[in-house]
Amino acid sequence: MHLVDAAEWSRRRDEAYRRFLEDIEVGYVDRDVVELIRLVFSKKRIFTTSSCSGRITIVDAAYPWLRDEAYVLFKKHEPVDPSEIEPIIASRPIHRYWLVVSGPIIHFILASLEDVQKLFTALRESGFKHSGVISITSAGVVVEAVSGVWTPFLLKDGDHTTVVSLQHVVGIANSILAEGKNRLGRLLKAFKELEI
Amino acid sequence: MHLVDAAEWSRRRDEAYRRFLEDIEVGYVDRDVVELIRLVFSKKRIFTTSSCSGRITIVDAAYPWLRDEAYVLFKKHEPVDPSEIEPIIASRPIHRYWLVVSGPIIHFILASLEDVQKLFTALRESGFKHSGVISITSAGVVVEAVSGVWTPFLLKDGDHTTVVSLQHVVGIANSILAEGKNRLGRLLKAFKELEI
Repeated sequence: MHLVDAAEWSRRRDEAYRRFLEDIEVGYVDRDVVELIRLVFSKKRIFTTSSCSGRITIVDAAYPWLRDEAYVLFKKHEPVDPSEIEPIIASRPIHRYWLVVSGPIIHFILASLEDVQKLFTALRESGFKHSGVISITSAGVVVEAVSGVWTPFLLKDGDHTTVVSLQHVVGIANSILAEGKNRLGRLLKAFKELEI
Repeated sequence: MHLVDAAEWSRRRDEAYRRFLEDIEVGYVDRDVVELIRLVFSKKRIFTTSSCSGRITIVDAAYPWLRDEAYVLFKKHEPVDPSEIEPIIASRPIHRYWLVVSGPIIHFILASLEDVQKLFTALRESGFKHSGVISITSAGVVVEAVSGVWTPFLLKDGDHTTVVSLQHVVGIANSILAEGKNRLGRLLKAFKELEI
């Protein structure tokens, strides 16, 4: 049984690599994840389409997991200072202001289930415990690598400020961001050993 | 290629079903998910090993995603009243007190990748968008169904109380719990149509 069409997979890999090189040229790529993407593309039987090294966002949404019904007011892939956020949350939200810290997320596309198992081992050892296959088609098996390092903080609900100290929350958020980047570093190391 | 050993898969299904019946007898089973589990076991090519309908917990941990280094001080699968929590968080945490609302989580075990694709469709339509295959062995393909309805609230960090109003936080937490239960209801409906 051939799960994946090798020619189609290969074509998509080439496309993804070309897009990555273009994104670097334009300056689109999230700096902290470039080294890992380069390493992934140095392997023969795997590639990646989208990736994020981890970030802090401020969103206006009823719930912190929403995407379509949410407004992203601030986004940064590095530690944040309270003074960067204060002016944003001084206004009244439509729904609620959440500060959301996300760990790294990477999508890998592979051509065989044996390689998926190898990747799973590397991911779990690096702290990406919430990873899983999210799609299986003739174009490839898609693995979403997620660390579980994801924490929202409710800052404001209508006119009602919900946190006692923004500075305190931002301090914890920055330490969570650092924990995510740390796992990305461990994944980079694991990839150096990975034969795939 | 036979990915899964049919005899082994079948044995494990029987085991899981026996355990489910025992758990019901002892009163272990989370009430809100019993109907879904019964429906799953009425299908031929799927079974479930562990499931949770969604819950509110109070944990003492440095970060809300931790399991091994966390102390669970309170757990309830139904809406919570602030008075149930107040005495718990009156004490000083070792690390931090987090109120964590989790949506439903269900582990399904299937015997074929075609059925996995069918299940994925039902899961996405029911709002279980973070679902994925977490393991593939001769005993079966394990799909973890997760909704993304997961929100922690930091309540206390050492001596420092971090929320302005516990009542306000508990109100939002209860509405998040309800949203998770709502998706479980949608999944139950989708399963009624699912030929698997």
